[in-house]
Amino acid sequence: DSTVEVAAISDLIQQKDQIVWVDLQNPRAEDLALLSDEFGFHPLAIEDATHPHERPKIDAYNGYYFLLFYALRYDAAQKRISSQQVSLFIGANYLVCIHQDPIAAIDETIRRWQRYEHDFGEDVAELLYHLLDTIVDEYFPILDALIERVEDVEAQIFDHFRPESLQEIFALKRELLLMRKIVASERDVLNVLIRREAPVYPRDMVAYFQDVYDHLIRITDSIDTYRDLLSSALDAFLSLQSNQLNEVVKTLTIASIILMSAALIAGVYGMNFEFMPELSWPWGYPFALGLMAAISLLLIAIFKRRGWL
Amino acid sequence: DSTVEVAAISDLIQQKDQIVWVDLQNPRAEDLALLSDEFGFHPLAIEDATHPHERPKIDAYNGYYFLLFYALRYDAAQKRISSQQVSLFIGANYLVCIHQDPIAAIDETIRRWQRYEHDFGEDVAELLYHLLDTIVDEYFPILDALIERVEDVEAQIFDHFRPESLQEIFALKRELLLMRKIVASERDVLNVLIRREAPVYPRDMVAYFQDVYDHLIRITDSIDTYRDLLSSALDAFLSLQSNQLNEVVKTLTIASIILMSAALIAGVYGMNFEFMPELSWPWGYPFALGLMAAISLLLIAIFKRRGWL
Amino acid sequence: DSTVEVAAISDLIQQKDQIVWVDLQNPRAEDLALLSDEFGFHPLAIEDATHPHERPKIDAYNGYYFLLFYALRYDAAQKRISSQQVSLFIGANYLVCIHQDPIAAIDETIRRWQRYEHDFGEDVAELLYHLLDTIVDEYFPILDALIERVEDVEAQIFDHFRPESLQEIFALKRELLLMRKIVASERDVLNVLIRREAPVYPRDMVAYFQDVYDHLIRITDSIDTYRDLLSSALDAFLSLQSNQLNEVVKTLTIASIILMSAALIAGVYGMNFEFMPELSWPWGYPFALGLMAAISLLLIAIFKRRGWL
Amino acid sequence: DSTVEVAAISDLIQQKDQIVWVDLQNPRAEDLALLSDEFGFHPLAIEDATHPHERPKIDAYNGYYFLLFYALRYDAAQKRISSQQVSLFIGANYLVCIHQDPIAAIDETIRRWQRYEHDFGEDVAELLYHLLDTIVDEYFPILDALIERVEDVEAQIFDHFRPESLQEIFALKRELLLMRKIVASERDVLNVLIRREAPVYPRDMVAYFQDVYDHLIRITDSIDTYRDLLSSALDAFLSLQSNQLNEVVKTLTIASIILMSAALIAGVYGMNFEFMPELSWPWGYPFALGLMAAISLLLIAIFKRRGWL
Amino acid sequence: DSTVEVAAISDLIQQKDQIVWVDLQNPRAEDLALLSDEFGFHPLAIEDATHPHERPKIDAYNGYYFLLFYALRYDAAQKRISSQQVSLFIGANYLVCIHQDPIAAIDETIRRWQRYEHDFGEDVAELLYHLLDTIVDEYFPILDALIERVEDVEAQIFDHFRPESLQEIFALKRELLLMRKIVASERDVLNVLIRREAPVYPRDMVAYFQDVYDHLIRITDSIDTYRDLLSSALDAFLSLQSNQLNEVVKTLTIASIILMSAALIAGVYGMNFEFMPELSWPWGYPFALGLMAAISLLLIAIFKRRGWL
Repeated sequence: DSTVEVAAISDLIQQKDQIVWVDLQNPRAEDLALLSDEFGFHPLAIEDATHPHERPKIDAYNGYYFLLFYALRYDAAQKRISSQQVSLFIGANYLVCIHQDPIAAIDETIRRWQRYEHDFGEDVAELLYHLLDTIVDEYFPILDALIERVEDVEAQIFDHFRPESLQEIFALKRELLLMRKIVASERDVLNVLIRREAPVYPRDMVAYFQDVYDHLIRITDSIDTYRDLLSSALDAFLSLQSNQLNEVVKTLTIASIILMSAALIAGVYGMNFEFMPELSWPWGYPFALGLMAAISLLLIAIFKRRGWL
Repeated sequence: DSTVEVAAISDLIQQKDQIVWVDLQNPRAEDLALLSDEFGFHPLAIEDATHPHERPKIDAYNGYYFLLFYALRYDAAQKRISSQQVSLFIGANYLVCIHQDPIAAIDETIRRWQRYEHDFGEDVAELLYHLLDTIVDEYFPILDALIERVEDVEAQIFDHFRPESLQEIFALKRELLLMRKIVASERDVLNVLIRREAPVYPRDMVAYFQDVYDHLIRITDSIDTYRDLLSSALDAFLSLQSNQLNEVVKTLTIASIILMSAALIAGVYGMNFEFMPELSWPWGYPFALGLMAAISLLLIAIFKRRGWL
Repeated sequence: DSTVEVAAISDLIQQKDQIVWVDLQNPRAEDLALLSDEFGFHPLAIEDATHPHERPKIDAYNGYYFLLFYALRYDAAQKRISSQQVSLFIGANYLVCIHQDPIAAIDETIRRWQRYEHDFGEDVAELLYHLLDTIVDEYFPILDALIERVEDVEAQIFDHFRPESLQEIFALKRELLLMRKIVASERDVLNVLIRREAPVYPRDMVAYFQDVYDHLIRITDSIDTYRDLLSSALDAFLSLQSNQLNEVVKTLTIASIILMSAALIAGVYGMNFEFMPELSWPWGYPFALGLMAAISLLLIAIFKRRGWL
Repeated sequence: DSTVEVAAISDLIQQKDQIVWVDLQNPRAEDLALLSDEFGFHPLAIEDATHPHERPKIDAYNGYYFLLFYALRYDAAQKRISSQQVSLFIGANYLVCIHQDPIAAIDETIRRWQRYEHDFGEDVAELLYHLLDTIVDEYFPILDALIERVEDVEAQIFDHFRPESLQEIFALKRELLLMRKIVASERDVLNVLIRREAPVYPRDMVAYFQDVYDHLIRITDSIDTYRDLLSSALDAFLSLQSNQLNEVVKTLTIASIILMSAALIAGVYGMNFEFMPELSWPWGYPFALGLMAAISLLLIAIFKRRGWL
Repeated sequence: DSTVEVAAISDLIQQKDQIVWVDLQNPRAEDLALLSDEFGFHPLAIEDATHPHERPKIDAYNGYYFLLFYALRYDAAQKRISSQQVSLFIGANYLVCIHQDPIAAIDETIRRWQRYEHDFGEDVAELLYHLLDTIVDEYFPILDALIERVEDVEAQIFDHFRPESLQEIFALKRELLLMRKIVASERDVLNVLIRREAPVYPRDMVAYFQDVYDHLIRITDSIDTYRDLLSSALDAFLSLQSNQLNEVVKTLTIASIILMSAALIAGVYGMNFEFMPELSWPWGYPFALGLMAAISLLLIAIFKRRGWL
């Protein structure tokens, strides 16, 4: 964990018993050129390391692996996940790490490495494991925050609907989809690290990478489950809406028919014909009101029989 | 089936003809440390055994398997399934079992082992089979309880709809989804136990693990079938709603048009113009009523022809 | 095809040139125990053979196969498929068949075996083929009955909708789903019989089992096709409903607006103000009626332009 | 290409340098029996060749392949695809072809074979290729006819909706589904012809069968694309319907509320109370009309603010 | 990079140290015949190269590969993607390229080859890589244009709905579907180039083809993600519509019931009965208006309790 000149690296990595960690944040073109010279990295890998790429992957080159991973950050105010690309060149005795912004997981791993050097062993694979493990461990609180929002929105739907719930469902679907896209590809990357026949790392590291792989599987599984539950929640919402619409339209229909029938009777006795015998009946007015009531009751009975009431 | 000191375990497991069963409920950190020393378990496996993990799995370590399984419990009042993690370390002649709460299936297996020791044979694999079999057998009554609820809800939909049915459909979907997630992963675990080329257990045990595997397949199959039926039930409900809405709106439309037409005639003869010849006709009033009836019949004929009645 | 004592079976099956067919209907526990002794069947297989299991399967045991198959019966009155479990133990020179109820396919196979013994050859595989073929052949008329119902229901939807069609669609979906579940698992069983590297039956039988396999594939294919068509039919129904609802609501809207507008004019001239000049116009009444007609025509023109008429 | 007696076939096919093509249309039972004797075909293959089967397949028998293929015919008037089964027995130096109706592709292939015998070479595989290629080439115009209908229906939906479009969508879905079922199975058949390790045909024919396989893949790909587009079209239709319904119901609501409000005012001043001061106001009538106008404008303003207008 | 007579090609390609690039735009039949003679291409490959084919593919022939690829062009005005077929014959030391229209990627590659001949090396594989890479690089701006439209349409839905959004969603679905169809097949083509056991190109080219493959995977991944988001957007739209419809219908129902109730009271007191005591009450008119107000308030209270307001 001592610091060296860049130009000395090519000498250093010849000494197989030395581990070199190079951490480059937002590197200039000349840094990369120098680095490329010292390590002899493939120009395609350098290009991938410095351009936003949006998909985790692992490529095997002659003598080293090139690995793209993503640290995730959750903006609780905006309720948005953002991803930060971490590019890693993994050789037998070196680890080169390139990224744009400061990444908490890297700083944390370096801090722990410097403090507990003994625990980490003299092994690039172990260093890599600690770095990937730290990155992946930060996914869990993000996933938990999303899950909490899913469960909130589910509860709201059966409780008291607000149109914002709908917008929240679609925002959550989007976040889960984008998170899944990254995590599922990282799972494939880990699978390569585990199954590769001739790994660059000692055999007993497999259990460790298996552990990271296992975390990534649990995360994708959870995302799938909660995406299913969100879809169910949306179906539930639509079914409830449809049920409610039926109820409202039934109410409208029943009330309209009763009120219009009564109004028709009133309209008839509001006509100005000279010869309308009922008009001069002493009980004409109560008769008309009674007729309205009778027709209303009859209609209610009909609707009851139809099961609408 | 005798009880021994923890510190004596490392000696005991050297004797290949002895089977050691260690059952730890809600262990303290120091118990785990001691255990880890005696058996030499991998720290990652210890970590998995003591943290909630939410996904069955099997990991092969040097000389033993680490297996996560879940006992399920159905709360009939709350209508909720809860799961309890069972962590197993399976060696050539020992079985270490770690869990938080008391688990019926473990107690039952120990009781049967103690009583029928002879039947169980001197074999860890057989012990493991009995434990897994007991856990899985307890899934069937839970599945049956869920299936009964699915069939109830299906019957209600075509019979007499209540909004609670909708809530029940989504609750059932959720329970089936969560149960499937566990059972499907356990099926994969059993598959590893069956297909593993160099198994830790004698060849004739395969039929037994195959039997547990077979039970798990039947459960996932049934869950899939009933999830399909639930989706169909929901589609049925929406189609019925849509059909019913059409009927209601047709009724509203027909009744409105007839009543409004009649009311319009009444309205016309309720106008106060000085010169309205019909008003002084002796047959004006019956004529107006007849006109209303005629228009109503005409409209009914039109709706009949359109197939709305 | 001679009948023998159960206790003599163990001797008989030692004679490799003899074929033994044992057909047990609704066996008692002691029959099974005796049988198990004579043939040395695995207790797990015996358990599967005697408990309802609901899923076809094939298990390879030491020296014999255990095979679960299902005969289907179609109740034309209830319009329901029921399944009957057939459990088969298939050895080099014996076939043991266990079932609860009388099964037509078994009786038929025995009858043909007794009559045309020569044709069947001295081969358990051929006997097995004839039994499975007879069971599967009975699926076709059941499938045809279901297909006919699907096509009836499809025709009804575009022709004249009745709510029972909806119930029929869901009943058919259910029957097809349950039938598919059985047939697809039986297809997998046959696949094992065909692909197994070291089969218990002579190589030239493969074409025969291939033929049964082929039948099962055709049935699952047809079921999938008709499930797709049913889903399409349901979509069609919902689209038609939605279209019809639009038409009805348009009618309601157009008629309401016209009738209410005319009624408003009538209402205005039915007001009792002392100073309403139109009331004393000689042409007031025709003017009012003309105004109603003019507004109605104007509204119709507007709706025509909007494409609602 | 000379014609021979059926009974002479068995002798003929012994001469390995002779190619025999047997084309049987609607054969009688005795023709088949004779044929079966001469070639020694398996009874199961003969059965498949003479019964309608509804699924392309290839079976490898001892010394020959049995292949089922389907010629398609498009009835432009009925807008329906019909299929005709072609059963082929493919030996080292013979091709036996059985079918019910006259099939254009077979006649065409025979004609070309007779005319350009030299081009075809002395090879059954080449003959088979030309036959399958001719059959598959006839699928393209059928597919084009379906695609044209899909594109017509898509255009109609956004342009001017007619209920027949809906029926056309479902008819097209059905035709595409049935065509896909046949073509996808034929693709699997061709795959067997290409990948089979020990093919009956010379190695340089693979490119030719690969070409037919390639055509079948393009057809299934196109069918899938257009099925997706049809589903999208249906979704589009439903969304448009839903949007239109909203518009109609909004119109109804706005118009009803305005007209009913105005009518209520008219109704109020149509009441016959003795003491209604407004009735004797000189400006009562204009006041009432003004009130109606004011309320209408107020309501319009409210609806505008709500975004309904 | 010198130009030669076509007839000299067959001699030229015998010289293994020469690379020949043949670029044919819109070739005549005699050009193709000559070419076919010189190189000895398979007639099926020639046919595929000259007919529109609509599906990328790679075929291995004896001594060369035949590869179909598609350049895409985005018409920003029409908002439509169009594809142009590029047919490539790839030999050990030649590359023959056939296409109908001028293709920017080809011109660009030739220009760069001529300028930086040294960089390209003396290798067909490198030439092929530069060509495919240039073609695929042009997909990214097209994809970005589509993604921008997807995000616009998503924003509109929750913001301010216009019916054109619906049409835009379906147009985008169509473009993404057609683009995916091409890109996914090209990905399979590249996979063949990478995994082929005995490749025609040197081993160190794999990283380059891997890079193109990686680009194609990223494009299909993005297309899938944005298709999912479009589907979500459509679901969102339908849910919002459904919610809005409910709101509108509730408004209609509440307003109708209140207005009709008030109108009924007005209608009752507009009846012309001789004996209606209220009519001569001095407070009759205010009483009637008060009754209307009271009933309206009662109804509003009822709707409030039902949660409709």
